[in-house]
Amino acid sequence: MAHDTSYTDQKFNVVGTRVKRPDGVDKVTGRARYGADASAPGQLVGLILRSPHAHARIKKIDTARAEKLKGVKAVVTSADMPDLNVGNRDLFAVLENCMARDRALYDGHAVAAVAAVDMNTAKQALKLIKVSYEKLPHVTDVDEAMKPDAPIIQDWVFTVGVEPTPKKPSNVSMRSEFGHGDVEAGFAQADVVIEKSYKTEQTHQGYIEPHACLASLGPDGQGELWVTTQGHFVFRNTCAALLGLEVSRLKVTSSEIGGGFGGKTHVWMEPVALVLSRKANRPVKVVMSRDEVFRASGPTCSTSIDVKIGATRDGKITAASAELRYQDGPYPAIWGMLGAMTSYACYDLKNVKTVGYDVLVNRPKVAAYRAPSAPMAAFAVESTVDLVAAELGMDPVDFRILNAAKEGTRASYGPTYGPIGIGPTLEAVKNHPHMRAKLKKNQGRGMACGFWFNFGGQTCTDLNVGIDGSVTLTVGTIDVGGSRAALGLIAAEELGIPYDMVKTNVADTASLGHNDMTEGSRGTFSSGMAAIFAARETIEVLRQRAAVMLDVPVEAIEWKEGQAVATGLEHSNLAPLTLKEIAAKSPTTGGPIAGHNEVVADNAGVSFASHICDVEVDPETGATRVIRYTVVQDAGKAIHPDYVEGQFQGGAAQGIGWALNEEYIYGKDGCLQNAGFLDYRIPVCSDLPFIDTQILEIPNPNHPYGVRGVGETSIVPPLAAIGNAVSNAVGVRLNHVPMSPPRILKALEEAANS
Amino acid sequence: MAHDTSYTDQKFNVVGTRVKRPDGVDKVTGRARYGADASAPGQLVGLILRSPHAHARIKKIDTARAEKLKGVKAVVTSADMPDLNVGNRDLFAVLENCMARDRALYDGHAVAAVAAVDMNTAKQALKLIKVSYEKLPHVTDVDEAMKPDAPIIQDWVFTVGVEPTPKKPSNVSMRSEFGHGDVEAGFAQADVVIEKSYKTEQTHQGYIEPHACLASLGPDGQGELWVTTQGHFVFRNTCAALLGLEVSRLKVTSSEIGGGFGGKTHVWMEPVALVLSRKANRPVKVVMSRDEVFRASGPTCSTSIDVKIGATRDGKITAASAELRYQDGPYPAIWGMLGAMTSYACYDLKNVKTVGYDVLVNRPKVAAYRAPSAPMAAFAVESTVDLVAAELGMDPVDFRILNAAKEGTRASYGPTYGPIGIGPTLEAVKNHPHMRAKLKKNQGRGMACGFWFNFGGQTCTDLNVGIDGSVTLTVGTIDVGGSRAALGLIAAEELGIPYDMVKTNVADTASLGHNDMTEGSRGTFSSGMAAIFAARETIEVLRQRAAVMLDVPVEAIEWKEGQAVATGLEHSNLAPLTLKEIAAKSPTTGGPIAGHNEVVADNAGVSFASHICDVEVDPETGATRVIRYTVVQDAGKAIHPDYVEGQFQGGAAQGIGWALNEEYIYGKDGCLQNAGFLDYRIPVCSDLPFIDTQILEIPNPNHPYGVRGVGETSIVPPLAAIGNAVSNAVGVRLNHVPMSPPRILKALEEAANS
Repeated sequence: MAHDTSYTDQKFNVVGTRVKRPDGVDKVTGRARYGADASAPGQLVGLILRSPHAHARIKKIDTARAEKLKGVKAVVTSADMPDLNVGNRDLFAVLENCMARDRALYDGHAVAAVAAVDMNTAKQALKLIKVSYEKLPHVTDVDEAMKPDAPIIQDWVFTVGVEPTPKKPSNVSMRSEFGHGDVEAGFAQADVVIEKSYKTEQTHQGYIEPHACLASLGPDGQGELWVTTQGHFVFRNTCAALLGLEVSRLKVTSSEIGGGFGGKTHVWMEPVALVLSRKANRPVKVVMSRDEVFRASGPTCSTSIDVKIGATRDGKITAASAELRYQDGPYPAIWGMLGAMTSYACYDLKNVKTVGYDVLVNRPKVAAYRAPSAPMAAFAVESTVDLVAAELGMDPVDFRILNAAKEGTRASYGPTYGPIGIGPTLEAVKNHPHMRAKLKKNQGRGMACGFWFNFGGQTCTDLNVGIDGSVTLTVGTIDVGGSRAALGLIAAEELGIPYDMVKTNVADTASLGHNDMTEGSRGTFSSGMAAIFAARETIEVLRQRAAVMLDVPVEAIEWKEGQAVATGLEHSNLAPLTLKEIAAKSPTTGGPIAGHNEVVADNAGVSFASHICDVEVDPETGATRVIRYTVVQDAGKAIHPDYVEGQFQGGAAQGIGWALNEEYIYGKDGCLQNAGFLDYRIPVCSDLPFIDTQILEIPNPNHPYGVRGVGETSIVPPLAAIGNAVSNAVGVRLNHVPMSPPRILKALEEAANS
Repeated sequence: MAHDTSYTDQKFNVVGTRVKRPDGVDKVTGRARYGADASAPGQLVGLILRSPHAHARIKKIDTARAEKLKGVKAVVTSADMPDLNVGNRDLFAVLENCMARDRALYDGHAVAAVAAVDMNTAKQALKLIKVSYEKLPHVTDVDEAMKPDAPIIQDWVFTVGVEPTPKKPSNVSMRSEFGHGDVEAGFAQADVVIEKSYKTEQTHQGYIEPHACLASLGPDGQGELWVTTQGHFVFRNTCAALLGLEVSRLKVTSSEIGGGFGGKTHVWMEPVALVLSRKANRPVKVVMSRDEVFRASGPTCSTSIDVKIGATRDGKITAASAELRYQDGPYPAIWGMLGAMTSYACYDLKNVKTVGYDVLVNRPKVAAYRAPSAPMAAFAVESTVDLVAAELGMDPVDFRILNAAKEGTRASYGPTYGPIGIGPTLEAVKNHPHMRAKLKKNQGRGMACGFWFNFGGQTCTDLNVGIDGSVTLTVGTIDVGGSRAALGLIAAEELGIPYDMVKTNVADTASLGHNDMTEGSRGTFSSGMAAIFAARETIEVLRQRAAVMLDVPVEAIEWKEGQAVATGLEHSNLAPLTLKEIAAKSPTTGGPIAGHNEVVADNAGVSFASHICDVEVDPETGATRVIRYTVVQDAGKAIHPDYVEGQFQGGAAQGIGWALNEEYIYGKDGCLQNAGFLDYRIPVCSDLPFIDTQILEIPNPNHPYGVRGVGETSIVPPLAAIGNAVSNAVGVRLNHVPMSPPRILKALEEAANS
């Protein structure tokens, strides 16, 4: 677990220490309350009826028998949902995904819901709802969906980003193009050009905790929602907009979250639960089953990607291009665009062009999954980079170092980089003992790079000092990966007090201003920035109070190491006042002591990682085992190194599962065949090696402490690193993720037969 | 329902309107969540074992059999509570009242507690706890307790306020003296001197909702408490101090409150629930039964009061004195002191002296009850004032007007009054049609005055503007009487927007700075002040954002009627921006829009009331019926007149119950004989007349809107007004509250026999 802090001179007292996690005891003793743990007197059980068809017209829904069942308090269909069809297509699409209107658009699409006094009654009621379907042609494959004769998923979707605007609806919702220079000229200068196509299959974030909420909405338009989410303020705004409520009248309280990874950034059954509650005039709890989570929450895209890279004999890339086709499920999104933006972000390129396509299919609406879209693009690009290096006879690390982006590089997606970490991570890889370790038979080593933007966004933080000097930090960003500890460290650092004096809490939406989602690795970056500013405002108040207590002008008070110190010779007899002493006197010096901050935390620093991976492939079965794995990543300032390492390891672990095993398997009928953890296999502990990490702290100049996001970049390289390792182990290039045993055997067979 | 707003020129748009109450639908549909409605997974049922003796040494508590009972998860006694005996007597007393140590000090005193998986197991466990008591002599009457040979309740209590400090412990915990001038000289100048003694019995606030909490405290010193309380921040600080926790690590969430009236200002079983939870490592819910509420929460004092008033023939009071003996239960308090302070506050007196005694007895620890201590003092003083007026042959209203305090009067308890309302309320009474209505046989009319200080204190408020322009006002004062509506009106007034755009929420202790209790009628006064300042800070932000949107200097922006208006000729072409428009753009103009305020809201204006009451007394049974009742009170600015009238009526209703029926009846064994609503009779709707009100808005100069507290003063005059009315009806002076049928019959008998 190496940790390089040499990139900055900034010194910290508590930031960077590995303090105990504040949620640890709650989580190991079972006291932590997750989404399904909320309850309210008189609550009902909500269940959702889902389409068994990939694409079908809903001719009629007969709910009469269900409504008559004793114990059923509400049955809702799209007829009970607001009709947003006119006016706001975005909201319409969000709500239609929560409850199908005239058509079921994928296997698992909600078509009706019930609220009943208990689970058995609710299940029975679902069986009594009769839906008349007319099956329609469907398409689930992204390449198939782009064909001219493919069934059209949405008649209101016309391709955006092409000239002239098409007159016919299309499954291609958007074409996005990025790049600069002249790629044709660049390829003409190349000595070596490699072109290759890749596919990746759809995966799920696999969070342990299913979606769950408790909704209570009254006839007065006032409601509450308790929910597991990555962003309760955004959920509030979305649900309020969908149901025509004022945001201030809907109070959303977030639970502990049992994993999200992007999948808990969208509303799924929450608006339905609110409508059930309003109709039943009772609180309604809806907890998804694992089957529902797979079929009807938001997995990642499946993709199909073509990459072309040209380089000169001396190892300089002259041109790079890619066409990236991402499926979004049945609603327009931006995943193909993000793939096109991220694909070449690691490199300093004169000529680069990427084209992304966002494509509709009859699958669940896609959600973010940790650095969404980047892992698939990196798989395609980094595999090809290895092929070019091999063709040139160059070491793949040296080849990457030669072409790596650096400060001043114009990124392929537009902006010019400030200080960045791709070069240092590659140097660290080159010098890492892992690279010199011996490999045995059937083993191979691969490495790959990854990039993620990191986001900032709107953030509010309050800091309140208790009468005993203990500090409450109130934040609005959901703690998905340790941000409460990190933010406590930041507030303690700024105030100059021990970490133990700070408790960080995530407030409900009625108690704090708006906060954007915990996504884009923004939690600690943005709330950390707001915490620093709130602490600085608090210090101003502390200085004023100390001035009152010491009877000196406030200008004479300095805040030093958690104490108010009166400066100047004339005050040299005055003992400093601790925060605790000032807090104890606060009732008589002006009342409660607090600081507040509302900020748009822009300029989250971009993040880069380089991963090294050793695999052993069993040539008999095609089974691959990762035997060694090293993550090197630029973290910016690592506020709490344990958590940073945990993020590095977690991303790598998920990437390993994605690379080797996980995939949505659709039948010819367009229905999902493996909606459960028995058939959709995520890696368990025994599947994984120890994942070693190396933190490089290249500070983000746009954050007072140099913080960058750290949570997502670590999932970007694994698909490619493992692909390169497997290819090196078996001598055959793998171009389809997951590289499951059957695919590896097939690739070996094809190679043997060619 | 008269309403006089002529005392100020200040104009309001929404303040003063009778908008719908925001908690109305919740409360009538049962959605509102009270203390007992909290729940957490795995929660246990907590029950408390209580002393059956008025005073007893606890020789031994054998919990072994209870602990072995299947389903019992924790048993606690004082041995499990921190020993605070050394160091902090105040904290020690609070904790000992929650759980007796070596002695049970009153019938109902907690001696042990259990947490079990269900109610039946918990009940069975209580029966298995064997407590060995040694009964000790007890005293429950305040006058008896002051006698030299009375059993001493606390050996560590020595009378405060006497010189020299006594060497022997005493049941008199404090002697308090107030006044000015020379009363002996004053009485010498009097033509008429009346001396009389009075008694009032102990009553309970009678809130519908019993005390209830759910406690969860972990081995890591972090905990949560959901509780019905008048002050969750104070509960947090108290529980943290009692149990040695940091205040920031204990999160307290308040429920809706089903009445408090002062009785929910102290912790009772909450610290015990926390200790049970920590020992069981599970959440524990404790809900008091009505029996427990009566025996072991905090009723008001019983009192014994001597009053002496002298006046000249022309109706001028020359001297007034009183000795007031209040029982506090088994722990020192300040109720006698408050009685001594309030007794003559309505009058402009040259010579006045009051002496209060706080006295310990073997009864439950006394809590506040709506203007605590003032009703009993007013009963004694206002009865005597009527006697003096009668002796002088003067109209009792004219006599009071002649002697009423006014601006510049030095109050009997020390300060000099600013603008006050006692004179105007008396003039209003004099002119009220009620005073001229005819009375029938067996009917009598009485009137009386009352005073309350009103409190201010520490308050924090946040105001956040949503993306749709709806406003969330976050407060920390519990809404016991409509403050959410009132505070919403105040924020709307200040921002210049409709009331419907504001939603007021009471935050938990992890989401806002410290707020003092909702007591002393301070809720709307102090949080209203903080809301005004927070709204003004918000307007500054709105102006800045508007300046960005309009591209003009912020100095050119004025906030007028809910809109940002660019001033000056050069900006005359710019359309004003509404709050909604500014909110919609906030993500790109600087982020969330908010204002905050922390304040010590000092200088709550004192409040006065004059009540008129007609009664009919059945001479056969002694039963009294109130047939007409009018409240005239100085409210300061009435933010929401419906609620102000509700407070006036509620206080009068409780005063009527106190005056005529309610009392704690103790047996010779010192045990409470009527711990239930069947035997302790509070008035129900059919017992009460319509209570008419007249609001006088005499503005409090220390509040931006002129607000005074309104919730308490209305309970001060009823005992005396009814006493005067009953005395006028039956021709005999009643000097013992409650004036229940047996007491009235007894007084009539005694008068007939004398």
